[in-house]
Amino acid sequence: MSDYRYPLNDITFSLQHIAGFSRLNALRSEEVSDDLVDAILNEAGKLCEQVIAPINHSGDQEGSQIIAGEVHQAKGFKEAFSAYVEGGWGALSGAEEYGGQGLPFALSAAVSEGVQAANLAFSLCPLLNQGAIEAIETHGSEELKQTYLPKMISGEWVGSMNLTEPSAGSDLAAIQTKAIPEDDHYRLFGQKIFITWGDHQMTENIVHLVLARLPDAPEGVKGISLFIVPKFLLDASGNPSERNDVIPVSVEKKLGIHASPTCVMSFGDNDGAIGYLVGQENRGLMAMFTMMNNARQGVGLQGLAISERAYQQALEYAQERKQGMSADCTRKVEIIEHPDVLRMLMTMKSQIDAMRSLVYTAAVEIDLANLADGEAKQLHNERNGIFTPIVKGWITEQAQEITSLAVQVHGGVGFIEETGVAQHARDARILPIYEGTNGIQSLDLIGRKLQGDQGEGIQRLLVDIENELSVIELDLVSDASTLLDNIKRVRAALVEVAEAQKVCLQRMNDNPIDATGSAYSLMMLMGYTIGGWLQVRAQSKSISSDVLSDRQKASWNQSVDFYCQHILTRTYSYYQAIMLGSESISSLSSSSFVR
Amino acid sequence: MSDYRYPLNDITFSLQHIAGFSRLNALRSEEVSDDLVDAILNEAGKLCEQVIAPINHSGDQEGSQIIAGEVHQAKGFKEAFSAYVEGGWGALSGAEEYGGQGLPFALSAAVSEGVQAANLAFSLCPLLNQGAIEAIETHGSEELKQTYLPKMISGEWVGSMNLTEPSAGSDLAAIQTKAIPEDDHYRLFGQKIFITWGDHQMTENIVHLVLARLPDAPEGVKGISLFIVPKFLLDASGNPSERNDVIPVSVEKKLGIHASPTCVMSFGDNDGAIGYLVGQENRGLMAMFTMMNNARQGVGLQGLAISERAYQQALEYAQERKQGMSADCTRKVEIIEHPDVLRMLMTMKSQIDAMRSLVYTAAVEIDLANLADGEAKQLHNERNGIFTPIVKGWITEQAQEITSLAVQVHGGVGFIEETGVAQHARDARILPIYEGTNGIQSLDLIGRKLQGDQGEGIQRLLVDIENELSVIELDLVSDASTLLDNIKRVRAALVEVAEAQKVCLQRMNDNPIDATGSAYSLMMLMGYTIGGWLQVRAQSKSISSDVLSDRQKASWNQSVDFYCQHILTRTYSYYQAIMLGSESISSLSSSSFVR
Repeated sequence: MSDYRYPLNDITFSLQHIAGFSRLNALRSEEVSDDLVDAILNEAGKLCEQVIAPINHSGDQEGSQIIAGEVHQAKGFKEAFSAYVEGGWGALSGAEEYGGQGLPFALSAAVSEGVQAANLAFSLCPLLNQGAIEAIETHGSEELKQTYLPKMISGEWVGSMNLTEPSAGSDLAAIQTKAIPEDDHYRLFGQKIFITWGDHQMTENIVHLVLARLPDAPEGVKGISLFIVPKFLLDASGNPSERNDVIPVSVEKKLGIHASPTCVMSFGDNDGAIGYLVGQENRGLMAMFTMMNNARQGVGLQGLAISERAYQQALEYAQERKQGMSADCTRKVEIIEHPDVLRMLMTMKSQIDAMRSLVYTAAVEIDLANLADGEAKQLHNERNGIFTPIVKGWITEQAQEITSLAVQVHGGVGFIEETGVAQHARDARILPIYEGTNGIQSLDLIGRKLQGDQGEGIQRLLVDIENELSVIELDLVSDASTLLDNIKRVRAALVEVAEAQKVCLQRMNDNPIDATGSAYSLMMLMGYTIGGWLQVRAQSKSISSDVLSDRQKASWNQSVDFYCQHILTRTYSYYQAIMLGSESISSLSSSSFVR
Repeated sequence: MSDYRYPLNDITFSLQHIAGFSRLNALRSEEVSDDLVDAILNEAGKLCEQVIAPINHSGDQEGSQIIAGEVHQAKGFKEAFSAYVEGGWGALSGAEEYGGQGLPFALSAAVSEGVQAANLAFSLCPLLNQGAIEAIETHGSEELKQTYLPKMISGEWVGSMNLTEPSAGSDLAAIQTKAIPEDDHYRLFGQKIFITWGDHQMTENIVHLVLARLPDAPEGVKGISLFIVPKFLLDASGNPSERNDVIPVSVEKKLGIHASPTCVMSFGDNDGAIGYLVGQENRGLMAMFTMMNNARQGVGLQGLAISERAYQQALEYAQERKQGMSADCTRKVEIIEHPDVLRMLMTMKSQIDAMRSLVYTAAVEIDLANLADGEAKQLHNERNGIFTPIVKGWITEQAQEITSLAVQVHGGVGFIEETGVAQHARDARILPIYEGTNGIQSLDLIGRKLQGDQGEGIQRLLVDIENELSVIELDLVSDASTLLDNIKRVRAALVEVAEAQKVCLQRMNDNPIDATGSAYSLMMLMGYTIGGWLQVRAQSKSISSDVLSDRQKASWNQSVDFYCQHILTRTYSYYQAIMLGSESISSLSSSSFVR
């Protein structure tokens, strides 16, 4: 089993030098110094490496089980979660008025990368808690906030998200769970599926957020309300007491993230589960959307994290495993000396570098949008809106390739579960599916984000990128010739994006259903291109950096050159699919698959 | 759980109309009529659907285990194997003099597609038996053949292949298992790992083929010999009697193909395992190479088969699962009505169509090479040699994408093991690894197949393809306009291949180690291009076909159009990787990954 090492250097370089984290300080009342960032991430790294990573493989092997109506998680998880809570890690970006530390989201993202890479199954518990906190923070009454937020931000209680039902997956309009009003609360009846960490013994209470329908609610998405349903009802002093009428019915046997219990939850088998309305009646879906950007970016971050973990294991193996001979046939070599293995490792690394730059650039945009005012806020929100489906969709697609390559580098040993690398590929497979499938992400991009403002936001992004490339070009020192080539390649991709988005917009206006056939290609085209832009930025920043060693600079150069020559070229196929291949999708129907 | 349906129409169309199976009849003493092909495949389909497929998922869940020094396979497997043997399916292409039916390899491949799709883990047992049969047939003494072949061809006994050792995976030169001569036999001592179906209770004997070293053998690959080591030694009448000194030590816990026991085998824990030399001393690796083309193509066939199985399940789900609304928002629709789902399904189907055409075209080449004489034989062998790494490498890479898409079409349900679709993705993951990793395949292509004859064979292939495209173009009926576009796109890809192979050859001659950094890209570039060529052939044949219905013809058109517009365009990235990106690999070393 390979150990996880928190990639502190890469993360701080991405956060501070590529994503421009320090821009937040101008907008904050309290500065977050580079030293503080370093200190926090250094400590986070230790927790991830020493406490959370060591139970990743055992958790996968053990899974979780239901005993007497309660889920029991894998060994060591409760202790690790306690350490996480005691370290105050959950409260990092929480609101100060409810006991949080009020630090930037981007900083907590850098901590989350470590937690997720160390143990994806474990990380889902704090991730969903974060989502629940945001929903309550934004939409809950002051009473609900006072009651629940301090405990949830500290991590003594955690939230869970109860959206999906057997007939309501991507289409939440089909939700059937009922909520019947009674006094100051409601009684809920219904079944939810795929509820991540729906039950466990890690905390003294679980705060279920549940989407349900009032008896007189209109049909569709405009008739869905959001409720808090605590596992244990609170007594007069606000402490968990009586068990509420909600139970985990079963735990799914899944392809991956075995240690994260995925529950079928039953609400109201007896008198009805007591719930409290969050926000207004029938506005539950809006409350969900509030936190969706962050949660979706959180899944993109998971794609980065699991890729990093798999890459580390592959690199370590390639540096240790001897097989085959040197070029001059005089000695046995480690397999990292074989060009095809180097190709696989750099395919992983160069994409991870691009993914990380994007993740933190997008995370800083979330903070900027939170902190800025007026037009600036609007612009950051716009940028954030464009980044979100790409962070979630493109990065989680890359994670499939990267975790699969990590298996491949291992050869036959990679197929053996004991090696542990196959687990990363299994775990990663959920990422393109949950929190809105990547198909849904691409619809969000081509619909709300492109058609929504008739392409203005995306065009502004393209102009900003082009301007930045011009500045880099002007600042260019004479011997940085590959950077110039790389800029040229990114520009070629930008031209493709510019044309493709225009065509997609036209088609969305003309015939939106048919046009969505190109949505996935647009998302991937933009992902690779944005990755190229940020890789060029990274190369430029690394050349002029005074924090990187010469070896680190050389490593960045190689990563960016490789990306631009081997990865960025993939845009062409997506571009062509949009420009030429639209009818070959719109002409399809069920009968196209007849034999 | 979805049922498997043997795709009889597609297979017979591929075999007879695309691969030109009937060309074999001119070279055979006995004709294999279309009716006979239909009858055989129809029966094979039934066996696959009714007997072998139903135990696929249960076998995955159950796996196999060692009890008292013997491996016990999953329930139902012995009965299914008996049905396979009793139906004479293993003997289909076996030599008639040893009880086989002497039918073409391509026909047995069409049967194997069904067996593999029905149950990949099960199919490995007959597949490895086939490999062992070929090794003995080609290299064994007449006595060995008489003793072992009839029982192995009938399937009463099966062979296993014992190559890999802990330090000898891709590099067989490192084999350490010893063989000490004694009377008319040898005594073997050593440990083998990753031995597929290394032990089981399916047959009354197992014929292990084992690579080992004689005491005075030269180092490296020229000191390896091949031995038959039966699990049970034969008595004077040739019946299994005393147990030989070979035991399964453990069974690996793997990512997939759980029902196929992957054993650590120990030879000679006591007095030494008694073995019989196959072929000449120190020529064992040559014997292995003999059967490698067929076995590698067999793995490519597995890539096709598992893709087909996953595709069927995804298509069935997409046609049944309701989610979301119709374009006019008036009714709930099956998800196959959503363009992005259609995109995923056609991404699967169009590649499967291309893969199937390639598999059977290559299989027919094997038969042609076996049947032809003189220059024709040489040409078929040459073509076969080029196809083999592409069939194995390119198709098994596609299988990763296709089985993953099948999970994606299912959404959250796909991640639940009970659904069964995740198993296909897990099972498929071994295919790029075993029987020579895809890295090894690409080295075979750029080395033996390209540099070996200084590019002559590949150039001949390109000329033949171009000639065929010209003929199709000339024969074109006026309304087949997309075919003309598709021809144009294949030609563009051919130009890329022509340039790329020239550059690769030059580099192989100048600096072979560095040049191998482009080997994988060349393999993928050629794979997609050959897929495009055969798709165009399929479109042309389907247009003029008198066996296809109008709906089937339309389906072929859509598959080929989609392939040429969405899939074939991927060549550009591999082409650029070769043309521009060679230094960004050759400049890499272990220090490139420093942080």
